[in-house]
Amino acid sequence: MGHAIRTIMKTPLRIGVAGLGTVGASLLRLLAQRRAALGLVAGRPIDVVAVSARDRTRDRGVDLSGYTWFDDPVALAREAEVDCVVELIGGSDGPAKATVEAALARGVHVVTANKALLAAHGMDLAVEAERRGAALAFEAAVAGGIPVIKTVRESLVGNEITQIAGILNGTCNYILSRMEQDNLSFEKCLAEAQKLGYAEADPTFDVDGHDTAHKLAILASLAFGGRIDADAVRVEGIRSIKQIDIRMANRLGYRIKLLGVAVRTADGVEQRVCPTMVEKTQPLARVMGVTNAVNIDANAVGELTLVGPGAGGDATASSVIADIVDIAQAGSRGPVFAAPAGDLQHMERAPVKDHPGGYYVRVNLLDKPGAAASVVSRMAEAGISLESIVQRRSPKAAERDPTGRSGAKVPVILITYDTTEDAVRGALQKAVADGFVGSSPQVIRIERN
Amino acid sequence: MGHAIRTIMKTPLRIGVAGLGTVGASLLRLLAQRRAALGLVAGRPIDVVAVSARDRTRDRGVDLSGYTWFDDPVALAREAEVDCVVELIGGSDGPAKATVEAALARGVHVVTANKALLAAHGMDLAVEAERRGAALAFEAAVAGGIPVIKTVRESLVGNEITQIAGILNGTCNYILSRMEQDNLSFEKCLAEAQKLGYAEADPTFDVDGHDTAHKLAILASLAFGGRIDADAVRVEGIRSIKQIDIRMANRLGYRIKLLGVAVRTADGVEQRVCPTMVEKTQPLARVMGVTNAVNIDANAVGELTLVGPGAGGDATASSVIADIVDIAQAGSRGPVFAAPAGDLQHMERAPVKDHPGGYYVRVNLLDKPGAAASVVSRMAEAGISLESIVQRRSPKAAERDPTGRSGAKVPVILITYDTTEDAVRGALQKAVADGFVGSSPQVIRIERN
Repeated sequence: MGHAIRTIMKTPLRIGVAGLGTVGASLLRLLAQRRAALGLVAGRPIDVVAVSARDRTRDRGVDLSGYTWFDDPVALAREAEVDCVVELIGGSDGPAKATVEAALARGVHVVTANKALLAAHGMDLAVEAERRGAALAFEAAVAGGIPVIKTVRESLVGNEITQIAGILNGTCNYILSRMEQDNLSFEKCLAEAQKLGYAEADPTFDVDGHDTAHKLAILASLAFGGRIDADAVRVEGIRSIKQIDIRMANRLGYRIKLLGVAVRTADGVEQRVCPTMVEKTQPLARVMGVTNAVNIDANAVGELTLVGPGAGGDATASSVIADIVDIAQAGSRGPVFAAPAGDLQHMERAPVKDHPGGYYVRVNLLDKPGAAASVVSRMAEAGISLESIVQRRSPKAAERDPTGRSGAKVPVILITYDTTEDAVRGALQKAVADGFVGSSPQVIRIERN
Repeated sequence: MGHAIRTIMKTPLRIGVAGLGTVGASLLRLLAQRRAALGLVAGRPIDVVAVSARDRTRDRGVDLSGYTWFDDPVALAREAEVDCVVELIGGSDGPAKATVEAALARGVHVVTANKALLAAHGMDLAVEAERRGAALAFEAAVAGGIPVIKTVRESLVGNEITQIAGILNGTCNYILSRMEQDNLSFEKCLAEAQKLGYAEADPTFDVDGHDTAHKLAILASLAFGGRIDADAVRVEGIRSIKQIDIRMANRLGYRIKLLGVAVRTADGVEQRVCPTMVEKTQPLARVMGVTNAVNIDANAVGELTLVGPGAGGDATASSVIADIVDIAQAGSRGPVFAAPAGDLQHMERAPVKDHPGGYYVRVNLLDKPGAAASVVSRMAEAGISLESIVQRRSPKAAERDPTGRSGAKVPVILITYDTTEDAVRGALQKAVADGFVGSSPQVIRIERN
């Protein structure tokens, strides 16, 4: 009773929520459930006063009658009597961008879960937020319920961060985990992910690595103190991963993960998203299913690993609420990224260097004399040494063609020593032109520790 | 240049550091190294102006000439012209407590790494801090460089936390890891830990579980919103763990970890620190050496795991700096614990319940007829069902005494089904009294998932 009276006497933080999908519905429910506790911590009540979504009539399992309804989220951002707009619309442009801009233009704080928006326009929005004295908070935009933004932005402020590596897309990690655990093809696992709601009808954004790249670009900016540069991320998705790659990785002591990695070197920053063979003993190799994980190397703490849910309504709403309470306590606190946005510089792209773990290469090789020699000599010409060559003819193929002279193709696995991906791809291109190797060879980076 | 001018024009946050051991020296070095970046994020310069330690002449690898020296930390807290005192003295009472009290008494913010102080006096200090409008920040007090306080206090504010389980003492985890990896006794591993500086000359505080208990009590207060109650923690250390326990755990698919666990139930809060068999597939089982880890179950995010360095000068200083920058940005922000300290209630202790994982029991059994029957019937009397009984006579013992009738003692392992630790210990006490069982049987909780 004492609390309630004290809390009510303070000015509430008035919230407008734009977008009432899964996360929006979770947010309204959790804010109502935790109202008293949040009021105590925030020092003032947190009151949702306005909402906006496309369809007013849809049943979201929450009572919307107490909130002012806006058909247009931009109108909400422009007109509603709110101190903070929560943008949960999604998409890099269109109404999401217009909503955030409208809120910032009148100095209203913004909380967003929108990585695409930040990856494309984060710098401009941050400049505007800082100019208006408004907060632009986005814990929910990267790794869902894992507090990685707060960790990098606040907890590691005393550190020079040297590397961030993460499993940042639950859809991809679910598919790769299922492929390994249940011996299924990429296509089957994708279909299952879609059925379970882990993947969109159009899965391009997730499985081709773009979602991971957006999140990585945001993390890299925060960690290294430069402008967000999503175009600098080298992106490769998981569509080309086959069962044989999963099985071979397993035999070699690795697990294939879609990693987003940003590394600071003396010559610049490298940002890449690609399927990677991670040693099974490493923490990231053990993260299975839709779970996300982020591994941070920093000079003072050494290594820090955070593991948790990368998506889901409640988990994402949990991060949104953390941002809201921070704003309720202290408004806009510190620059949006690592330094005032207008002062952030372009990050130099690190030049391509030999990767000390080498590469896993799978080619479909014409099963006849001279074929293997051709690939190996193309590799040698490019200065690439091979650690091993494994030719795996299936028992069926061996039965059909005991002499191996039919001209059928067989998968051959090459493991290289230290080299660059460019060198490997260049050599493979020549081998394909030689006519001994099928098109689209598979190249996967190996991380050894 | 632009930054520098802008920053210098703002009022600096003036810091006094009390205690210049490993963490203090790291703190001074890191604050100097990161001065420009910290000023940008904090929006004002962070200036150490005063220091205090016992020995002014000791070489700490940092230049102290720019700071006002105080022989007495309490004098620093009382008289130095500072906005924030960092207490790195240690100990639950004495100069550490007097220093923090003196700082708070005049409304000066406090950052501390002192878990013993908080476990004993955290509630009183929080009341005083909140009354004076001063911050009392303590990220460094629990799990060193892992941002677990910020995560529980800020990131999970929208959640109801149901359980926190952690490896919170690097010394114990180092010893248990070495015992497993190198087949060494507890005593040998402790000696090595002392040689490497991982354990104190008097290791009681660490190896008997008290350090873990202090950290757990602080986490439980934050997570469950009750008063810190270190006396409520059931504490057992790792001195009694023998090689045979490590090997048997391994064979059963577990690893022995000293866990601190706080669980919220409908009937109250259970807090315990004890050696625990954790399934090897679980994240906490994989944390080896001096590394710490915390696993949090919460209703909105589900499960979150943080892994990182639990000690070390730089890692701990990293957490101190995060607290300092928070204070520089927004002073005291929100209550010290989950709600205003004066309003926090005593947490009910959860009544003892059957533990669904059962227990591992090792007894030294007199190697003669009737001995095993006696133990088993004492267990049965107490309503305890046994999943398995394994008697492991060493090959040497079998050679010396092929009939097994010499009256020598042999280790026998019992695995129970669901039961309480009290029931197990009661039955064992009777079995000891029967004369068939050696004193001090080993009882280890098994966690199955």
